[in-house]
Amino acid sequence: MIAEILCIGTEILIGDIVNTNATYISKRLSEHGFDVLYHSVCGDNKIRLEETIKHALTRCDLLVTTGGLGPTYDDISMELCAKALGLNMYTDERVVKQLEGYFSKTGRVMTGNNLKQALVPEGAAVLMNDFGTAPGIAVEKDGKVLVMLPGPPREMKPMLDNQVLPFLSKYTDHVLFSSNVNIFGRGESSVEEKLYDLMTTSKNPTLAPYVNDGEVRVRVTGSGKTENEAKEIVAKTVELVKSTLGKVVYDVDSKSVEHSLVKLLIEKKKTISTCESCTGGLVSAALTEVPGSSEVFGFGICTYANEAKMKLVGVKEETLETFGSVSEQTAIEMAEGIRRLSGSDIALSLTGIAGPGGGSEEKPVGLVYLGVSVGQKKYAKKMLLGQHATRDREYIRKLAVKNALKTAIEEVMEL
Amino acid sequence: MIAEILCIGTEILIGDIVNTNATYISKRLSEHGFDVLYHSVCGDNKIRLEETIKHALTRCDLLVTTGGLGPTYDDISMELCAKALGLNMYTDERVVKQLEGYFSKTGRVMTGNNLKQALVPEGAAVLMNDFGTAPGIAVEKDGKVLVMLPGPPREMKPMLDNQVLPFLSKYTDHVLFSSNVNIFGRGESSVEEKLYDLMTTSKNPTLAPYVNDGEVRVRVTGSGKTENEAKEIVAKTVELVKSTLGKVVYDVDSKSVEHSLVKLLIEKKKTISTCESCTGGLVSAALTEVPGSSEVFGFGICTYANEAKMKLVGVKEETLETFGSVSEQTAIEMAEGIRRLSGSDIALSLTGIAGPGGGSEEKPVGLVYLGVSVGQKKYAKKMLLGQHATRDREYIRKLAVKNALKTAIEEVMEL
Repeated sequence: MIAEILCIGTEILIGDIVNTNATYISKRLSEHGFDVLYHSVCGDNKIRLEETIKHALTRCDLLVTTGGLGPTYDDISMELCAKALGLNMYTDERVVKQLEGYFSKTGRVMTGNNLKQALVPEGAAVLMNDFGTAPGIAVEKDGKVLVMLPGPPREMKPMLDNQVLPFLSKYTDHVLFSSNVNIFGRGESSVEEKLYDLMTTSKNPTLAPYVNDGEVRVRVTGSGKTENEAKEIVAKTVELVKSTLGKVVYDVDSKSVEHSLVKLLIEKKKTISTCESCTGGLVSAALTEVPGSSEVFGFGICTYANEAKMKLVGVKEETLETFGSVSEQTAIEMAEGIRRLSGSDIALSLTGIAGPGGGSEEKPVGLVYLGVSVGQKKYAKKMLLGQHATRDREYIRKLAVKNALKTAIEEVMEL
Repeated sequence: MIAEILCIGTEILIGDIVNTNATYISKRLSEHGFDVLYHSVCGDNKIRLEETIKHALTRCDLLVTTGGLGPTYDDISMELCAKALGLNMYTDERVVKQLEGYFSKTGRVMTGNNLKQALVPEGAAVLMNDFGTAPGIAVEKDGKVLVMLPGPPREMKPMLDNQVLPFLSKYTDHVLFSSNVNIFGRGESSVEEKLYDLMTTSKNPTLAPYVNDGEVRVRVTGSGKTENEAKEIVAKTVELVKSTLGKVVYDVDSKSVEHSLVKLLIEKKKTISTCESCTGGLVSAALTEVPGSSEVFGFGICTYANEAKMKLVGVKEETLETFGSVSEQTAIEMAEGIRRLSGSDIALSLTGIAGPGGGSEEKPVGLVYLGVSVGQKKYAKKMLLGQHATRDREYIRKLAVKNALKTAIEEVMEL
């Protein structure tokens, strides 16, 4: 079934907000076997919107719209879509009741405008909105399926997942299933090269590489008559990808490297501590983003100043004077210091030059030392993360964090 | 001039990547006085793409495309656009030279496919790509202006800013200028209510509220014959917005509350330190994201475990036992402890329950204490950040961080 997503809103057209609704809906529809072939965005202008809706209905079987369902005079999309499909509008009493309940609960007064939101096309399934006042609708007329959802993502997403996808299940006869192979330490093009034959010849499952925040994921998507069939098809190829790529694969279907590390630490009942300079607390913030991390992480220190490095974790003044704060020796003393304080099984430290200032020929922007103290070992890894002109402070810090977490996974696996 | 942005790529349609290109281009074109009235997205399919290009050219004067300029057989957008405008293609020697240089520099072999990227429409200005192999083009034919750019944002953005906008300057006779008023501590709807008359009556400048990460911005956009004229129109209204909203306005045209705080600390020559529990280093990470923060921030501690609270910053065991780790008393001792260690002018601490687990009736998820130690003062602010069902761990932590930074701005202003 060919699908089009039409997002209605001037704020998207002037670049004030990113159209993440189209992304989310695309992903969910694709997973459920619909072919999303077009996105479009249009403002609340009556003539342009009417033309856009009509044009969409000539080329798709399923039109999903977001936005334009508010109570004000310029929210006209419901009316225009009903008209395009030749459907009359009526006032739905259930929606009126829900609106009345919403307003009495929040102590606000309902105006006549709000009642406009209870006007829906005849024959439509009304989709209740638990997080706002605008209901959505889903309706089929003459072989065209129309779904209309409100614009705010926190209202739209649960309505799509809990009401729209079940409504649409009768229009699709196959199930898609995807797994993501998580990779760190190898670039996208290099991953592609390694997997070239598989990626170009395999039709089911399909493979697609994807880059985000310095991590690479290979998404394996299989199609089957049942979910189990699709899952089996995917599982085999996931194993093949893992064996082809080797140890740069750190997990499958992980949200991120920090999620994998915390999971592994919990499994192994091991603890970690951190001492950060250039990353300023990003490693500890990443670890504590994962629910349950308190089981494995208790001590983090951000020694942004040299004084803090000495005072908080006992880096020697001599070390700082002889080798500088961005050095292998300082990194090791930072890791040893926080491990001593915390008694953790492994400790990580980071010290480097994130830029934009502070670089020199000898120590360029992007030079970062990762210190590791684990078991009887202590060592520092030298990383050069600033080679690209487009790598800014934020990106260099992110890469340093990911590198540290990936290294920790490798070390904890050995424990 | 009516503009449409057409982004070409299947990865957008299946929801694998967010279409941030459309947002960026929309913003820049709007700033330069173009009316972006449509976005569309289409895959590399010849029939659908050709139809989409033709349809776009019936309703806009300026068509900006991204993507579909690669070297492979399915990259056909340049050819289709040239055809739609009735332009022949030729091989541009400058591009051939650039491609040869690129390949010899990276030690890779140029294939015949790559030469396809040197084929451009006659009469077109060729836009050089400093970060990749695909050149862009800009051309006018019969009153229609066509601009084509590669898909990767890091290639597209500098080409748009440095080559496309200067090319387009002859098509616009007015200049837009925008300022953002930064607000924290008041919701979007409440800001709207306060500014209702101004927002609904003012045509030039226009005002639009915008929410991001718990911060509200009011964007004031003015139009003038010159940049100075537009700036003056905006400046007057910015002052009006500031006086109407009062102290919830923390800055104008700041990237974020952390940027404003670091700027203020540098101006006032004051230093800050942090001790974090539930936010796990997010405050120190936010501060150190700002270039130059090392002047004002040196000491951060993440005391995620109770043991760390005692050992690293001297929170009393008695305090933890009597009041618990999430309490006013613990927050104050954390702030006092890190201030003592660092000698900073102000210290912040955060301790709370970020969820999803760990909440109770007495201490629900979202309860966070912000401890402050500054001058002779020490106090804790109790915050309830989890009232909404949609506020997850990540969001609660973000709000806690923003609240802490905003409070610090207020305190530092008094110093």
